Amino acid sequence: MKTLIKDVHILSMDHDFSEVKNGFVLIEEERITKIGSRSELDSITIQVDQVIDGKNGLLIPGLINTHTHAGMIPFRSLGDDVPDRLRRFLFPLEQHMTKKLVRASSNYAIAEMLLSGVTTFCDMYYFENEVAESCKKMGIRALVGETIIDMPTCDSQSPSGGYEYCETFLKNWQNDPLVTPIIAPHAPNTNNPEILKKIVELSEKYNAPITMHVAEMTYEMAEFQEKYKQTPIEFLQTLGYFERDFILAHCIFATEKDLEIIASSNGKARVAHCIGANTKSAKGVAPIKKMLEKNIVVGLGTDGPSSGNTLDLFSQMRLFANMHKTHNQDRALFPAKEIVRLATLGGAETLGIADQVGSIEIGKKADLTLIETDSVNMFPIFDPYSAIVYSANASNVNSVWVNGRKLVSEKKMVEQGLKEIKETLYHEMANFVVEAKKL
Amino acid sequence: MKTLIKDVHILSMDHDFSEVKNGFVLIEEERITKIGSRSELDSITIQVDQVIDGKNGLLIPGLINTHTHAGMIPFRSLGDDVPDRLRRFLFPLEQHMTKKLVRASSNYAIAEMLLSGVTTFCDMYYFENEVAESCKKMGIRALVGETIIDMPTCDSQSPSGGYEYCETFLKNWQNDPLVTPIIAPHAPNTNNPEILKKIVELSEKYNAPITMHVAEMTYEMAEFQEKYKQTPIEFLQTLGYFERDFILAHCIFATEKDLEIIASSNGKARVAHCIGANTKSAKGVAPIKKMLEKNIVVGLGTDGPSSGNTLDLFSQMRLFANMHKTHNQDRALFPAKEIVRLATLGGAETLGIADQVGSIEIGKKADLTLIETDSVNMFPIFDPYSAIVYSANASNVNSVWVNGRKLVSEKKMVEQGLKEIKETLYHEMANFVVEAKKL
Ligand SMILES: [Zn+2]
Ligand SMILES: [Zn+2]
Repeated sequence: MKTLIKDVHILSMDHDFSEVKNGFVLIEEERITKIGSRSELDSITIQVDQVIDGKNGLLIPGLINTHTHAGMIPFRSLGDDVPDRLRRFLFPLEQHMTKKLVRASSNYAIAEMLLSGVTTFCDMYYFENEVAESCKKMGIRALVGETIIDMPTCDSQSPSGGYEYCETFLKNWQNDPLVTPIIAPHAPNTNNPEILKKIVELSEKYNAPITMHVAEMTYEMAEFQEKYKQTPIEFLQTLGYFERDFILAHCIFATEKDLEIIASSNGKARVAHCIGANTKSAKGVAPIKKMLEKNIVVGLGTDGPSSGNTLDLFSQMRLFANMHKTHNQDRALFPAKEIVRLATLGGAETLGIADQVGSIEIGKKADLTLIETDSVNMFPIFDPYSAIVYSANASNVNSVWVNGRKLVSEKKMVEQGLKEIKETLYHEMANFVVEAKKL
Repeated sequence: MKTLIKDVHILSMDHDFSEVKNGFVLIEEERITKIGSRSELDSITIQVDQVIDGKNGLLIPGLINTHTHAGMIPFRSLGDDVPDRLRRFLFPLEQHMTKKLVRASSNYAIAEMLLSGVTTFCDMYYFENEVAESCKKMGIRALVGETIIDMPTCDSQSPSGGYEYCETFLKNWQNDPLVTPIIAPHAPNTNNPEILKKIVELSEKYNAPITMHVAEMTYEMAEFQEKYKQTPIEFLQTLGYFERDFILAHCIFATEKDLEIIASSNGKARVAHCIGANTKSAKGVAPIKKMLEKNIVVGLGTDGPSSGNTLDLFSQMRLFANMHKTHNQDRALFPAKEIVRLATLGGAETLGIADQVGSIEIGKKADLTLIETDSVNMFPIFDPYSAIVYSANASNVNSVWVNGRKLVSEKKMVEQGLKEIKETLYHEMANFVVEAKKL
């Protein structure tokens, strides 16, 4: 299968920020095999199966959502402005999550991500085998991790039951072309030190990445200070986490010393930054400027649909710009270009898959997002990166490819019907809604 | 002409936040004449010219953009992340604005606002007679003010030439049903005290509101401190501004005493808060929490398309939530409901037209926005205000009425073609683009 995408402004997001203004990309099977200009295209002969007219849209690498919870669509718009929502709404209602509900929610969340140009995401929640199956069905790329937490959960009756789930899951999903199984301890303060140690061993045994919420809560910071006179990051270092492939979500309260620990891991530890969720909950603005100065790898994440509400990275890019510029009192900090980088190549680096995706380069997997520029908010475009960060929204995404397969076309799902996915989710949510209304 | 809108969730945004879940609204000519539930509708007989099936969408009062510059579409995405852009990009390029370009830009900006559910805006720029004509043609409601500034401009060769333009403009646009002519001195530091005094007199003579950028720039604050040992707001008070209908844009650096001055005006002075523009430029977060505690009237604004980039209030509502919650370290502050209030009734109060628009109430003008809930980002909806603030974007706006006239239907302009408006603007921008590329 050969697909030619032509008449697009290619923002490759490679290390040189290469661009081709009236360009084309050739996809053969799952890879990008040619990139060039209109005149180069005119001078060669290629037989292709499909030609896509990009209509002067912006072609970017698929956006990468480095932290979310695809199973949590049922929680969206529930108790948004309530203090300590995690313990008041989320933990109690999670008891009512079922395997079928997680599957239905994942299908929906993946549709939402694809429709907004996300081609890879990193997930942690329960019933993650369902999430992995959902990724396969929907065709999206993902790192998928079962949550391990010191309490009974919807998919395991004993505390830390996620550990065994994880081991089986790691075995079952080795070498899948789209799904990478990972280990997802919930947070440093919601797992006991013994299980935290065992997780490092499990990661070594299966060579599996770990992702965890870290330095996200003020009470998490206080608890570690009181118990160990350490930050959670200092504590995790003593357990060997920074010698593993480690994706730290949030790091809002990371100290200078914490940043040194992350930086000294030489890229083994990376940060999934969720500006929307962190600031909607008034937790704070993570020290991203300092992280980047120390060459720490950072990607953007939406967090779950209950925390960030949408799963699209356009709203994250916009919030990122305004929040960090204001926080650092510097309008020139983080020009739009760098923010698009964080949402693409930065995300791929964060998830440890930059050799495969994250930029438009020959040989890389064809994970691509085409943004149309016909809509009223997309004119004029003096700077395409500005247009993406400051003007575009998820609805400007026209077409999306993952692994060479076209999953979104003309703003609609190609293979899976959104209406059917929504009806199934609505049906599976019946009991959840009854319980939610009791809170 | 009678229009019935049915099967909508009505968020009236009146003082009690009244809602009707499966409701209807009847529009007769330019007014709302009936509001009720499905069962009430079934029990009466009404002859109407048009029936709109709301498909369980959210019907809200039209959004109100309290501060923008409709003529500035040509500047969008130009020099976004550059320090002191006002003096480096905006002032020099404004010399190349023409009457025709302002008209073309206004048509485009109004289309963009209507498509995003904005039904009233407050404008200040040059060639404002063109903007007013454009409002009439496009059918939107607006307060329109010619800029007065101490330098030659694109529409007057002598400094402060806007003053005479303004007087003629005020005379010509008395008693228009859609356009309210106002006076728009650019800022306290860009007008000399004599002209600032004359502006108060002009406002008295024509009973015209004034709008001005105030307490927006650090150098503005410093200049007044040095010259007068006063803040700009203290200075303007001595000139009588707080006895006039006065819409202050920004007020980022308003002091405690400044807020007292605004509050003591008893509603004559109101604040147009532009969170997107203020934070993208890293200027800061205006003290809105304090303002509301002092019962100061506040509305939301996008600022110009070069400052806020989009003219839609959805992105402003989202930024408002995250910015102010984080700034005040309180996730429960400004629940979504209150933010939607600021974008509707709050905006109407800010512009002094709350007796006519800003809420869905019998007798008010039919300025309405229908938000569809079919798109992937709009499910589930436990709280419709949360869905609007945290999930919705401009593309979820399905239909818009201004003064009883349907201007947007199924996400498209009803009377004016966007394609033609864009082509005209593109054509008129030719010289501007040449000049822009020299900078
Ligand atoms: Zn999370
Ligand atoms: Zn302005």
